[in-house]
Amino acid sequence: MTDDDILLAERLADAAGEAIRPFFRARFDMETKADASPVTQADRAAEAAIRRILEVERPADGIIGEEYGTLRGDAERIWVIDPIDGTRAFIAGRPLFGCLVALLERGRPVIGVIDQPIARDRWVGAAGRPTLLNGAVARTRACAALGEAHLATTGPDYFRPPDGAAFGRLAAAAWGTLWGGDCHNYGLLASGHLDLVVEAGLKLHDFAALVPVVEGAGGRMCDWAGRPLDATSDGRVIAAGDPELLDAVIATLG
Amino acid sequence: MTDDDILLAERLADAAGEAIRPFFRARFDMETKADASPVTQADRAAEAAIRRILEVERPADGIIGEEYGTLRGDAERIWVIDPIDGTRAFIAGRPLFGCLVALLERGRPVIGVIDQPIARDRWVGAAGRPTLLNGAVARTRACAALGEAHLATTGPDYFRPPDGAAFGRLAAAAWGTLWGGDCHNYGLLASGHLDLVVEAGLKLHDFAALVPVVEGAGGRMCDWAGRPLDATSDGRVIAAGDPELLDAVIATLG
Repeated sequence: MTDDDILLAERLADAAGEAIRPFFRARFDMETKADASPVTQADRAAEAAIRRILEVERPADGIIGEEYGTLRGDAERIWVIDPIDGTRAFIAGRPLFGCLVALLERGRPVIGVIDQPIARDRWVGAAGRPTLLNGAVARTRACAALGEAHLATTGPDYFRPPDGAAFGRLAAAAWGTLWGGDCHNYGLLASGHLDLVVEAGLKLHDFAALVPVVEGAGGRMCDWAGRPLDATSDGRVIAAGDPELLDAVIATLG
Repeated sequence: MTDDDILLAERLADAAGEAIRPFFRARFDMETKADASPVTQADRAAEAAIRRILEVERPADGIIGEEYGTLRGDAERIWVIDPIDGTRAFIAGRPLFGCLVALLERGRPVIGVIDQPIARDRWVGAAGRPTLLNGAVARTRACAALGEAHLATTGPDYFRPPDGAAFGRLAAAAWGTLWGGDCHNYGLLASGHLDLVVEAGLKLHDFAALVPVVEGAGGRMCDWAGRPLDATSDGRVIAAGDPELLDAVIATLG
């Protein structure tokens, strides 16, 4: 991972934003995928724009994208793309969806960008470097007690039994729960405005970019058993702004 | 209700936005109210700014505000203020909370403003006039079948039994559910990006401003039994972009 890779990740997010903005609160084609999730013309245009750049600039790297699948999946370096994380929010005209760009090296995320192209919030994280929000250093806040933690998650219907009951125990123990938000919640956690984000059912393209953003701001991400997230994770994720919270979160979920 | 009242409602939202913006993603004092909901320095500063203007410009009108209570509650005209609807979202740095300003005449909302002072979305509704989003006419969209309806609500924990089960039946019958959003969802419905918003536990200051916005855009608002909303409503509300949806929604909830 080089400085040039970080700059490229930002240029990929720029290209996606340019592809997405004309469709925001406008007319677009939409269909429902096999997993019942919606996909729009904007998702596809944004991922295609990113792939065109990668094919020219990093022809040896792999690509895993939500809409157009996997290319060179056995490469050591793989770019992981979710052109619109939060397609339901995008469809509804809510400026909280995000474009996610990650670089994996040997399966571990080393660069992550969370970009909100309407509200113009961009978090950039890279292993061993401080996370930036629009160029300024972002830091998580201290919160060592679960009872003081502001928790966020996208929706109750993303949890299957028994995960929903586990999340319910956590929400009851936390200070409060904020619903909705998709990837944007992880950026707000990196900036010290939320303490916990806990979700289930995420795919690699949903969580890969989040890890460098959260960890470069002083937080920690892991699965519900406390294991680091990588390409083999089961999609149940915890982000804690204060790593001191993790033991209590894992015990409450488990 | 006069043109000048509509202009005044917008000036009240301007004053609230000016009071709120310096606190967004910044440091502020916060406490928890008797009903367990949070209130910040920004909520109080915004409502105080609004009340200062009303005392000068409409000294005979009543005021009902979330933070500072009721003044001249028996007046024929009453301004109803929620300086920050969605305080949890505001605290988390999410640009989806809103300032709500309504004018009631004999208990019925005749003016409503939903203002998002960070993303700069402002919906203005007045009885008998078209709703405007940032000055352009907003219209709801057609959606006559519940199975095609995009539904939104702020969170599952706002419903008490048996309302939660009723909402669950509705969500299962709808096309999809978007979580979070507070008052902003009703603006998106007025602009034709969402089809239904269904909530419970709302206070007069939460719903009064929504009614002229939604109805001036071609939608309909009522309680869960189909009755028009006024100062005596029980806080269980339905907003439908297409009034044709209402019978199916009421039957499914009931």
